[in-house]
Amino acid sequence: MKADSAQLAQPDEALERLAIDTIRTLAMDAVQKANSGHPGTPMAMAPVAYTLWRDFIRYDPDMPDWPNRDRFVLSIGHASMLLYAVLHLAGIKEIDADGKPTGEPAVSLDDIRQFRQLGSKTPGHPEYRMTTGVETTTGPLGQGCGNSVGMAIAERALASHFNRDGFQLFDHDIYVLCGDGDMMEGVSSEAASLAGHLALSNLCWIYDSNHISIEGSTDLAFTEDVGARFEGYGWNVIHVDDANDTKAFARSIDAFRATDDRPTFIVVHSVIGWGSPKAGSEKAHGEPLGEDNVRATKKTYGWPEEAKFLVPNGIAEAFRNAVSGRGRPAREAWEAMYARYRESFPTEATEMALLRQGKLPSGWQAAIPTFPPDAKGLASRDSGGKVLNAIAQQTPLLIGGAADLSPSTKTSLTFQGAGSFGKNDHSGRNLHFGVREHAMGSIANGMALSYLRPYTGTFLVFADYMRAPIRLAAIMELPVVFVFTHDSIGVGEDGPTHQPIEHLATLRAIPGLDTIRPGDANEVAAAWKVALSHSHEPTALILSRQAIPTLDRTKYASADGLEKGGYILGDAERGDPEIILIGTGSELPMVVAAHEKLASEGVRSRVVSLPSWYLFEKQDDAYRQSVFPDAVRARLAVEQGGSMGWDRYVGHDGGTITMKTFGASAPLAKLQEKFGFTVDNICAVARDLIEKNK
Amino acid sequence: MKADSAQLAQPDEALERLAIDTIRTLAMDAVQKANSGHPGTPMAMAPVAYTLWRDFIRYDPDMPDWPNRDRFVLSIGHASMLLYAVLHLAGIKEIDADGKPTGEPAVSLDDIRQFRQLGSKTPGHPEYRMTTGVETTTGPLGQGCGNSVGMAIAERALASHFNRDGFQLFDHDIYVLCGDGDMMEGVSSEAASLAGHLALSNLCWIYDSNHISIEGSTDLAFTEDVGARFEGYGWNVIHVDDANDTKAFARSIDAFRATDDRPTFIVVHSVIGWGSPKAGSEKAHGEPLGEDNVRATKKTYGWPEEAKFLVPNGIAEAFRNAVSGRGRPAREAWEAMYARYRESFPTEATEMALLRQGKLPSGWQAAIPTFPPDAKGLASRDSGGKVLNAIAQQTPLLIGGAADLSPSTKTSLTFQGAGSFGKNDHSGRNLHFGVREHAMGSIANGMALSYLRPYTGTFLVFADYMRAPIRLAAIMELPVVFVFTHDSIGVGEDGPTHQPIEHLATLRAIPGLDTIRPGDANEVAAAWKVALSHSHEPTALILSRQAIPTLDRTKYASADGLEKGGYILGDAERGDPEIILIGTGSELPMVVAAHEKLASEGVRSRVVSLPSWYLFEKQDDAYRQSVFPDAVRARLAVEQGGSMGWDRYVGHDGGTITMKTFGASAPLAKLQEKFGFTVDNICAVARDLIEKNK
Repeated sequence: MKADSAQLAQPDEALERLAIDTIRTLAMDAVQKANSGHPGTPMAMAPVAYTLWRDFIRYDPDMPDWPNRDRFVLSIGHASMLLYAVLHLAGIKEIDADGKPTGEPAVSLDDIRQFRQLGSKTPGHPEYRMTTGVETTTGPLGQGCGNSVGMAIAERALASHFNRDGFQLFDHDIYVLCGDGDMMEGVSSEAASLAGHLALSNLCWIYDSNHISIEGSTDLAFTEDVGARFEGYGWNVIHVDDANDTKAFARSIDAFRATDDRPTFIVVHSVIGWGSPKAGSEKAHGEPLGEDNVRATKKTYGWPEEAKFLVPNGIAEAFRNAVSGRGRPAREAWEAMYARYRESFPTEATEMALLRQGKLPSGWQAAIPTFPPDAKGLASRDSGGKVLNAIAQQTPLLIGGAADLSPSTKTSLTFQGAGSFGKNDHSGRNLHFGVREHAMGSIANGMALSYLRPYTGTFLVFADYMRAPIRLAAIMELPVVFVFTHDSIGVGEDGPTHQPIEHLATLRAIPGLDTIRPGDANEVAAAWKVALSHSHEPTALILSRQAIPTLDRTKYASADGLEKGGYILGDAERGDPEIILIGTGSELPMVVAAHEKLASEGVRSRVVSLPSWYLFEKQDDAYRQSVFPDAVRARLAVEQGGSMGWDRYVGHDGGTITMKTFGASAPLAKLQEKFGFTVDNICAVARDLIEKNK
Repeated sequence: MKADSAQLAQPDEALERLAIDTIRTLAMDAVQKANSGHPGTPMAMAPVAYTLWRDFIRYDPDMPDWPNRDRFVLSIGHASMLLYAVLHLAGIKEIDADGKPTGEPAVSLDDIRQFRQLGSKTPGHPEYRMTTGVETTTGPLGQGCGNSVGMAIAERALASHFNRDGFQLFDHDIYVLCGDGDMMEGVSSEAASLAGHLALSNLCWIYDSNHISIEGSTDLAFTEDVGARFEGYGWNVIHVDDANDTKAFARSIDAFRATDDRPTFIVVHSVIGWGSPKAGSEKAHGEPLGEDNVRATKKTYGWPEEAKFLVPNGIAEAFRNAVSGRGRPAREAWEAMYARYRESFPTEATEMALLRQGKLPSGWQAAIPTFPPDAKGLASRDSGGKVLNAIAQQTPLLIGGAADLSPSTKTSLTFQGAGSFGKNDHSGRNLHFGVREHAMGSIANGMALSYLRPYTGTFLVFADYMRAPIRLAAIMELPVVFVFTHDSIGVGEDGPTHQPIEHLATLRAIPGLDTIRPGDANEVAAAWKVALSHSHEPTALILSRQAIPTLDRTKYASADGLEKGGYILGDAERGDPEIILIGTGSELPMVVAAHEKLASEGVRSRVVSLPSWYLFEKQDDAYRQSVFPDAVRARLAVEQGGSMGWDRYVGHDGGTITMKTFGASAPLAKLQEKFGFTVDNICAVARDLIEKNK
């Protein structure tokens, strides 16, 4: 599908200028009306966005969820009005969550008038799921860049998996508009390095180099040679001297499309707030131009000074016709091909249909193993690896990897045919992210946005490096599975820099993220099942480095209880419990042992396994009361992490055995003794609490 | 102090080899004994560390806290045994927290035998404050690189501030040993870009390029041209083809020392686990070699196979003499110069003496303004900026800036003479970090490690980008002030990607970090006072975008109460309170208004301002009980953030008005209505709680 721009009909220059100025003035007017927003970049980059969409992007405005559409990612999310204006002018039609047309435009002129207002389809930064045509939520800088690498990987993986001779189901490109801020953020550096390594020639970053940042000229902080850096990453680097030179820009896209051995980086030199009295100044970046400046700018453009939200006659039609004229036939040809594909490859077609609905192939759950009781047990990272491998054999597009820690996180797929994803093998299912946690998270989000079911792996303490994409997965409701192993002082000798303390709390605090810390191998199995059953929630799966006994489920409740987030694992044999002992993860069997010891001494305790606060809080009052009856106020939570949040369950009258400080470098047994994570100490504290609550 | 290595006495080659192999075998033996650790990199880089310390590093083993010593940062913290071996052989003497010699070695041979054991001075990763000679805590990759840029900035700032004609008090260099992992992490990319921009020619990164990462060859994930990238950043790039070629390495350091217009990046090609059967393999990275392999390796080295922790006669003495022979005279000359300096510049000398003790110049607190009552009030970012500027005029080495957001965070120093820190002006006090939050945090830590009092600035939501250095500041007990503005849905139109929800909880969860969210301008003043009074705690200072009324402190309690973390701001006029209303930050005045409204309706409420949970938890039981008496169980916390952690104060019987979901893009007033942050709603919920608790 590569075409040369010189072969395309050249638009009338006046019409082109009018269309570009329409984008510019819509952005100016919307920001001015909202009295909030970022006018300067849409004004500068309107010619680029216009040319890209008019002449290159393969997109059918009537079918925005066509799987093989080109992706356009606005990594400079603050320039949202640029995207909204394009979506409006291109006549993109709205689709609902199921991909069905609603009959409404994705962005109407009224929506643009409602820019940044409550409930509008035009929020301050583009939000996935809120506005058709927004491929990913952007705003936090660098994230769109990271997402795009995930989308490019996904395109390659989907092509490898589904394409057959004569059936090029996937061959789309990913375009990114990014800026100086993106280029300064480390996450985009990480992502660019990996994209170069993987030779993702379907990826094109268009870098708006306007020499302005919020504090002033980029001379204040950013004078590196960005192009040279990208050459170091192995990218094809092209310069366009003037954002207004649409022909030069079109040639740069031709060059991208002609490049098949590396990603392309186009440096476009622009003037922020082009044409306005604030042009070339940081004052054009993040605030309305002001009514007077808006008028003055319109005058410069030869625009009616008093007209607001003006779309001259014929502009939208011409733009839509150009986009649709290219996109619709391409999409229709694809649908025809897909119809034939369905006949020739029904299994693959079914799988793809499920993927588009966000579903896994049927029967994947049957593969999940159960684990026999085992006093020695195994680390939950190990059981996690076993469960993952079992499921992955049934779910070909469950693809992921680790940030250079897979031998430790046990997140490698080791079965026949899994292989490594590399520049010459897109069928590989093990991604080697390198020591790039932040990009890993952001890339995983991009993969999830392109039908894959991604998972990531690193140590829990390094969740700190990738919080922004975890949060964005939750905001976007993407079912990414973030695996975190080495989840406590159980790390041992590596010491406090590698021992998570606050991390469980910081993940549990993210709205919409299901943080699950399973307490034995069978809870691990249940946790993976829950994680992959989620279609709108990301999961943080928290696993141990050290061995955990596998509980005897004939003696204790089934691990299926995990699906409710928390459940009564074992109870007092006679009468109401005097105390509720709560455990998660590697501390659960320790709590069970304490429960048994107390029982042998005549103390009645209940053991609650509470692997997911998120799921537990979703249960109704009656269920939660049945687990934690109001009457039993002596409660003790045991977790080798910080105490933040535990008061919700133990209340004023309960207690915790948790970490109050950072850890230390030592063998685990020594640390557990030092910090009180022993059966004897649990029993002692439990007795105190019972006494206190009498 | 630049010298050419050719002028230095060349060590006997056999002696050199013996010394290098001593480092290697100590690392092998210590890891083997601990049965845990990373032998391969110490074995590979021993020649580099040896040569650097023997021939170049300016360091007096008897006075490790000499301010003008060269800094050596082991960014590859997992290679800690390399550093411990060097510190042992160089005979570095231990100093206590006040810089006084204890008479002990920094690292004895017994300490090395205790590698990775509880309470030892040789933890798994180097820990600042635990081992003399460890300049910063490393382990999380990229952080040492970031720290080093802060140290290099600090050297420039200290030189600019203290040096006078004939008094070069500061002219030291900063050396970093880093690896592939560091190079893949975005934080080091950010830091390198800024270091190049600032032309920090006192900075030398030595990159151990061993082509091995944990998952295997770097061909799996990392094939960029790192040198080309650093040239893009504006660094001087030098290659050393073989880590064992100490002469070539020495020449590269000569080249660094001869370069005065840019930082230097030395790519040293090495073989991980050099000389062992696992050489060149990822298996040499993160696990003991195994007894057999240790013996085989010793045989390769010509080492006694059964000897353990062997330091051949004369090796330590020769090494120590080399280091000391250069470092002691340099330090003594410096002390003599400093004695003269004290006479000529007594004010500066006093200031420097205080800095070395971690103290600010006396009288700084007197500058802190008070704010009159004001119903309209001002945003706490604005009052924060005023207080910062007032204090900064009294404290010349309070230096900081923002991640390209200073016009929004109001963290610029705007008074005469403050200026911007740039490559040609090291007297400037405003640092322009660029859009590099992660590096900003890491750089600030490095500055704090070199006597400065740094602060940073960005939006609270972007704390996610810099959590690793915040955590490390807490682990290292560095009094960095991390300013975070735009602290809630008060961000308004920018929408959910820019509205922090979980972030207060995630900061409060970090042990040793004082998170303060002041509730009006006078609490802001008190918060800055507390933050700068801390000598061993970092502070997260949480400020609003939107205006907050300034409370009338004649009517309500003094803002000095903030020093206790929480205090009774206003109380029921007659009788015990029926309910305790708790507020922080921008919600505090809203809670006060509710308190007044309830009072007018005959409801007795207490208002507690709770800006710092950290400080409040430090108070004794009696004080905490006086604020939150057990008897009053109806409690309502109001905060425009998530609810995580609030149960600690409101208990099972109280409630919160907090955010349960992500926010939305809209003007703040609309959001407050939508999410229940109105005086009417506070009163309604309060009444319900009172009823429920009757």
